[in-house]
Amino acid sequence: MSRREPVFGWWDAPPFIGELIQSLSGRGKALFGFSSQPVQSRDLTGLAEMILSRRGEVSGAILAEAFLEAYRQASVVERETFMRTLLERFGPDQGILDAAVAAYQAEPSAKTIARLHEAAEPRRQELFRRINFARRGTTTLVEMREHLMDMLGKEPALQPVDVDFCHLFSSWFNRGFLMLRSIDWSTPANILEALIRYEAVHDIDGWDDLRRRLAPPDRRCFGFFHPQLEDEPLIFVEVALTDHLASSVDALLARDREPMDPKDATTAVFYSISNCQRGLTGISLGNFLIKQVVNDLKRDLPKLENFVTLSPIPGFGAWLRDETRAEDSEEVAAEKKLLVARLEGDWPLLDERELDAIRRGMLPLGAHYLLNVRRKNGRPVDPVARFHLGNGAQVDRLNFLGDRSPKGMRQSYGLMVNYRYRLGEIEKNHEAYAENGHIAAMPALRKLAQPVSQEVY
Amino acid sequence: MSRREPVFGWWDAPPFIGELIQSLSGRGKALFGFSSQPVQSRDLTGLAEMILSRRGEVSGAILAEAFLEAYRQASVVERETFMRTLLERFGPDQGILDAAVAAYQAEPSAKTIARLHEAAEPRRQELFRRINFARRGTTTLVEMREHLMDMLGKEPALQPVDVDFCHLFSSWFNRGFLMLRSIDWSTPANILEALIRYEAVHDIDGWDDLRRRLAPPDRRCFGFFHPQLEDEPLIFVEVALTDHLASSVDALLARDREPMDPKDATTAVFYSISNCQRGLTGISLGNFLIKQVVNDLKRDLPKLENFVTLSPIPGFGAWLRDETRAEDSEEVAAEKKLLVARLEGDWPLLDERELDAIRRGMLPLGAHYLLNVRRKNGRPVDPVARFHLGNGAQVDRLNFLGDRSPKGMRQSYGLMVNYRYRLGEIEKNHEAYAENGHIAAMPALRKLAQPVSQEVY
Amino acid sequence: MSRREPVFGWWDAPPFIGELIQSLSGRGKALFGFSSQPVQSRDLTGLAEMILSRRGEVSGAILAEAFLEAYRQASVVERETFMRTLLERFGPDQGILDAAVAAYQAEPSAKTIARLHEAAEPRRQELFRRINFARRGTTTLVEMREHLMDMLGKEPALQPVDVDFCHLFSSWFNRGFLMLRSIDWSTPANILEALIRYEAVHDIDGWDDLRRRLAPPDRRCFGFFHPQLEDEPLIFVEVALTDHLASSVDALLARDREPMDPKDATTAVFYSISNCQRGLTGISLGNFLIKQVVNDLKRDLPKLENFVTLSPIPGFGAWLRDETRAEDSEEVAAEKKLLVARLEGDWPLLDERELDAIRRGMLPLGAHYLLNVRRKNGRPVDPVARFHLGNGAQVDRLNFLGDRSPKGMRQSYGLMVNYRYRLGEIEKNHEAYAENGHIAAMPALRKLAQPVSQEVY
Amino acid sequence: MSRREPVFGWWDAPPFIGELIQSLSGRGKALFGFSSQPVQSRDLTGLAEMILSRRGEVSGAILAEAFLEAYRQASVVERETFMRTLLERFGPDQGILDAAVAAYQAEPSAKTIARLHEAAEPRRQELFRRINFARRGTTTLVEMREHLMDMLGKEPALQPVDVDFCHLFSSWFNRGFLMLRSIDWSTPANILEALIRYEAVHDIDGWDDLRRRLAPPDRRCFGFFHPQLEDEPLIFVEVALTDHLASSVDALLARDREPMDPKDATTAVFYSISNCQRGLTGISLGNFLIKQVVNDLKRDLPKLENFVTLSPIPGFGAWLRDETRAEDSEEVAAEKKLLVARLEGDWPLLDERELDAIRRGMLPLGAHYLLNVRRKNGRPVDPVARFHLGNGAQVDRLNFLGDRSPKGMRQSYGLMVNYRYRLGEIEKNHEAYAENGHIAAMPALRKLAQPVSQEVY
Repeated sequence: MSRREPVFGWWDAPPFIGELIQSLSGRGKALFGFSSQPVQSRDLTGLAEMILSRRGEVSGAILAEAFLEAYRQASVVERETFMRTLLERFGPDQGILDAAVAAYQAEPSAKTIARLHEAAEPRRQELFRRINFARRGTTTLVEMREHLMDMLGKEPALQPVDVDFCHLFSSWFNRGFLMLRSIDWSTPANILEALIRYEAVHDIDGWDDLRRRLAPPDRRCFGFFHPQLEDEPLIFVEVALTDHLASSVDALLARDREPMDPKDATTAVFYSISNCQRGLTGISLGNFLIKQVVNDLKRDLPKLENFVTLSPIPGFGAWLRDETRAEDSEEVAAEKKLLVARLEGDWPLLDERELDAIRRGMLPLGAHYLLNVRRKNGRPVDPVARFHLGNGAQVDRLNFLGDRSPKGMRQSYGLMVNYRYRLGEIEKNHEAYAENGHIAAMPALRKLAQPVSQEVY
Repeated sequence: MSRREPVFGWWDAPPFIGELIQSLSGRGKALFGFSSQPVQSRDLTGLAEMILSRRGEVSGAILAEAFLEAYRQASVVERETFMRTLLERFGPDQGILDAAVAAYQAEPSAKTIARLHEAAEPRRQELFRRINFARRGTTTLVEMREHLMDMLGKEPALQPVDVDFCHLFSSWFNRGFLMLRSIDWSTPANILEALIRYEAVHDIDGWDDLRRRLAPPDRRCFGFFHPQLEDEPLIFVEVALTDHLASSVDALLARDREPMDPKDATTAVFYSISNCQRGLTGISLGNFLIKQVVNDLKRDLPKLENFVTLSPIPGFGAWLRDETRAEDSEEVAAEKKLLVARLEGDWPLLDERELDAIRRGMLPLGAHYLLNVRRKNGRPVDPVARFHLGNGAQVDRLNFLGDRSPKGMRQSYGLMVNYRYRLGEIEKNHEAYAENGHIAAMPALRKLAQPVSQEVY
Repeated sequence: MSRREPVFGWWDAPPFIGELIQSLSGRGKALFGFSSQPVQSRDLTGLAEMILSRRGEVSGAILAEAFLEAYRQASVVERETFMRTLLERFGPDQGILDAAVAAYQAEPSAKTIARLHEAAEPRRQELFRRINFARRGTTTLVEMREHLMDMLGKEPALQPVDVDFCHLFSSWFNRGFLMLRSIDWSTPANILEALIRYEAVHDIDGWDDLRRRLAPPDRRCFGFFHPQLEDEPLIFVEVALTDHLASSVDALLARDREPMDPKDATTAVFYSISNCQRGLTGISLGNFLIKQVVNDLKRDLPKLENFVTLSPIPGFGAWLRDETRAEDSEEVAAEKKLLVARLEGDWPLLDERELDAIRRGMLPLGAHYLLNVRRKNGRPVDPVARFHLGNGAQVDRLNFLGDRSPKGMRQSYGLMVNYRYRLGEIEKNHEAYAENGHIAAMPALRKLAQPVSQEVY
Repeated sequence: MSRREPVFGWWDAPPFIGELIQSLSGRGKALFGFSSQPVQSRDLTGLAEMILSRRGEVSGAILAEAFLEAYRQASVVERETFMRTLLERFGPDQGILDAAVAAYQAEPSAKTIARLHEAAEPRRQELFRRINFARRGTTTLVEMREHLMDMLGKEPALQPVDVDFCHLFSSWFNRGFLMLRSIDWSTPANILEALIRYEAVHDIDGWDDLRRRLAPPDRRCFGFFHPQLEDEPLIFVEVALTDHLASSVDALLARDREPMDPKDATTAVFYSISNCQRGLTGISLGNFLIKQVVNDLKRDLPKLENFVTLSPIPGFGAWLRDETRAEDSEEVAAEKKLLVARLEGDWPLLDERELDAIRRGMLPLGAHYLLNVRRKNGRPVDPVARFHLGNGAQVDRLNFLGDRSPKGMRQSYGLMVNYRYRLGEIEKNHEAYAENGHIAAMPALRKLAQPVSQEVY
């Protein structure tokens, strides 16, 4: 009953707001005439100050629209300048902060702490909240953070601004506000197009490939959406329902495979999970998504027992090459060098006997890489491993030549890994991993990994 | 195409989560078996600590569900105890805070300020954010604040907890996340029922009365909704479209009136605006609602020129009675006493001559009350006046016997007032009011008000 | 995602059509100027002919709008005249029909039969189909049939027009085009209002009563809707989920009852089924509705085993009174007279002993009435019995004082009956009933009914 | 508010119906056990008879499901046999028909006509209506007609069965039941896929091409949908908004063109209109679609003044070639032969002077072909011309080399034509065309056409 949705977004064609902005941004004249301090329509700092002024209290939405328009038209240099201004000019009022510190030190109490917390809040946080009043405000704020992230490498001093973006986004993209949606072949094309654009693990090669991943009855896809970013998934996961523990993504994505009846599936294989919004980096989404999808699949398909990933090992290839190149490395056994020497040309086309030799050489190294090669903080070097182990999964099985795509061969000589989510052990695994970096793994894998001391990177 | 909305809320029947919670809350045994510190299912503090623990990182949603269940079953005393615990135990870690203060004082910088801000954040804020992971989490948090507000009168020391609720709600109920919806006779009954329950200004006397306010073509109603509180309006406003400046709510709500063609309307009368969520007290909503509705009405009905309220003056009656009782009041002129003496019994039934005398006595006092009677901070004593003047409206006209309902007669001897929103002057009015308490008013009204110095209450 | 419903009804504000109709209906001038035969805008017959003309082929929708407008403004007398015109002037072309008959008789074949069938179709059928091109055409055609039905009593000769309405509606309201919808407390108020208006069995006493029937978790309501009559249910059924075979509608509708968990329900009681559109009289809907609801309930609540009605016996009271009045009736036993004599005043307030005597007298008569009292065609006199028995239900149990409402006491001295839908026997029951009027009944009931020969009415 | 659509289709997972059908179709045993005449599950005729039997009255939906299942599994031969059975066995009951004829002849009256009409209705019509009770019944009936149409060429005697399909579909796909929907880039992919599949005029070359036709702001697409065929458009039209009368489809579909602001468009070009359901051949849809789209576009974009097509002339090439080949044709002027002789190889690449000569030769022949070359019944030979002229359009302009695609070159040597819909003249044009085959055309075109007598084909 479409008639029941007379719900119009508050920004549908707001005519006189539109005129105001136009008059403002088009001709750069003073805002609303009566103002004593004329503001150039492209002066981002001036607009930001106005948003935080008394006028912003009553005309926040209009001013936010004006700011967004100006930001969209700003050059890269103007945006970069504005980011620095955010750091320097839109921190807290230091006089008030010092007074709050003094009051706290004089008498530490819940009240003085509350005041201290408030006084320490940078003014840019309130600025961001008011920018969000505008149409597409959330979207633009996420983009602004992307722009900031582009600068952080060269200008790490801007980090505190990034902290404020993160603080806000953590609150706004709280799991309670995310909507899980099933994505399939009857999903609007503009959303599906986003999948093609954002797929990060196994490239989607156009619409026919996408159809093969969404339309068959034994395939599922789910994404998190946010009410304010309706047509933009935040993150999505692609799932294959199977009756076995899948070892090869090539087989999963084969063109001519016969789909199975999903009711007979015993195993859900999460073969790709992709973030869509770089501006939300660091905001926890994937963790929640996997658990929710496990939950929903189990409800709908009670026969499902195994929830595993089929994951890339993105750092394995580079690590292996580095190892063999390092002249003085003590770890580099002769076999390691030998193995890498073999991995040349079209080696997957070698005969079965030779492939078997390679397999026997590669698997222990893969296990070693995943289980023993760590960063200084004790976490694995491999980023995908960090993600799933941090979520409470365990390392389950290595798959030789699981991904023969050029990307897969380059990243990890085709090696893939299954992580497994055992419902009863997720918490225990997570806790052990978080406390002391303990990695849950199948005994066979642990045995395979060379019992050397951990390598630290 | 309903099939296209296979969007299932993430909490639809999550079976194994349900079991976990049941096992937890039903039998009070330790959570998930492997725990070394058993938690009673009704121990709110224990659950809250667990939510903030390492386990909460991975099982936040489950623990949040358990907490909500426990909170729902808790007695008033248990809840009150928990509120005090929130104050005492869930502030920031004071050691970390002191270190952050020291670091800031040693070297004030954006970085040390960021750390200080983070260190000063009470742990209960993160607790609230994680509680929000659960189904109906937002709703329950709003209710929790209601419970806290019930305690604040007796225990003002709990104020810092309220500050944290406010901080969070200001961010979550940001205008950018609110959805304006038109409410009419084809709106679901459960939402309409909420209108009947929450109408604060002119009671809705059952469904037939509601129908008279929603169904006619010259009536409108709009509300703000939040994605997480879908069936609960946050605030709503009732509007009558007319061809004149309405002076009497009795006429607006008359049973037998003939509706007009909305396309001919020149005036939109906002005759009632009601907040629905006590737990959102202090979160700015009405300001945005009125402006958005003005915007949308103007777009759809270009002939509309006047946007006025027809508002009660809730404090006028009590003020007048107090005045006449105060023995030593210098302000109390003989006429004032005379007027009040007349306002006895069924005085509205007096003949026109006598009514006219009362009118001539009452209007100047009403104007005086609205324009001159102030609080210590220079704001008007009347709360409705504070709301509309703070939004940038002006006092437009007084209406003698505009509301003859028992409530209207008791509150203000039937006197009502129109505030007017002049699009071009809203900002100026707001600014002048905010800066120095200047009240925008029609000259006639200002003349009517006795030119005495302001009364301060 | 509301944006995905850009589906606008084709009649949303069609501006130039609007102008045309206005020019036509407002001033009665000729249609479109170039016409040589001017048509008065209120001349129903003229408009109908024009719809069937060449012009109607290309401008059918516009002309249909004009016709509907004229029909709405027509007086009762004008409408009645038009109905007679439909009979007399809008039958088939008799010359063509006679030729088709001749051709058929000369050479009976599929081809000549097809031509005969086409030739025998009254022109009003095509007229009705073209009227349906207009906005709200279907609704108005249903209303037109209502108007016709009002005339049929006095003018039975109009029957053939009614046959054509029926023929069309049978095709358009084919079960395949009906949508079953669950109706509950979150259904739009305008649809719920229709329930209050149309409830035919147990009056709904306002919104609070309606809420008691829809909102509790152990209540259900379902209706059939048609795409073209979106806000108008065609028929609806109210269901109570219970753990016993309900014997009293008063208990089912009690204000203070405690709802049960629907998952524990064993029995679905269909306590009211109401048609909403008098203009669809004779179109089979209830039969499909009951079966579909049984189907859906069983799917959602697997514990449900019994599907019974709690039905009125509308003709019982009148029959009983007639019986006792009939001087020469041989059937009228002394006890019958005695019973009726007792049913005076507030007899339900008599003491239990006396009530028991009445019960023992009434039940056999009720059983006799339902099972043995028939029309000439062998079907039961009681209309509700005819409906459920025709659907394949069986008579299950009589309920003494099941309905103490004034209507229930008047109709049947409070007696009610359960019909039971046994899934495995519906077909057999229907077939036996349809073939030879055999009524399926519980043995106890059959025994109770006096073994007299059938009474025929 | 998706929650408000708890509307479940009545066929969602109807478990016990499913079992029944399975037991029936899986093992071919008798239906429901108690039957005395066992029916093989794949015996289409037996199932059809059962649907029309007494049992069908009460179990129509179940039996219809069984029939559809059997039909889907039937071989082509079995289906063909069944079509013949429909003709031979499912006509009317001839005894009853003869009686009705006799009664009519004895006393012609509305009543005897009604009975005659009813008696002449083939039993297959009721059969089709009851098949429609089943899930996807409408879809399958449309497919059944497709299968029948495949036979008609060889077995024209089956025509009367086709008449019955048409009769039903005309009623069911009545314009009043069709829903106009805007189709754009946010439409579900499965519907967009149908566009690619069904586009009949200018092939859509994959998803990128489709995106170019739907996503730009100056493009529109509309389709008719039917409630029972939700994901299947019945017909759709593609529209380009322009500021000039488009003469070349290549320019309209160019990859690199710059879209214009739709608000500035003066002209809507209907450059493709495609039927999607072969089984609905002969049911009037396109006529209504074009008019509705004109209506809606004019409402939304008031500046639009011209509504034209850019249409192929599918028969022109073949006609021209036939002409030149016909030895004895008197019409074949030397220039004609000359022209065709030039149209060899890559002639569009000739220099401008030569092209101009071809243009001057081709345009008069094109005009002649469209205006003068007729069928025996006086209608143009060209099918697209028949469609638009029958709708009341006029021939507006010929476009030399308007379509350089291989198909366009083959069909009509690239020649295209604009038909124009003048709102004020549609009726007049239609009427003149319908009455006596008069073709509305621009004077320039008429002059261009050789003033020969009409050619009849």
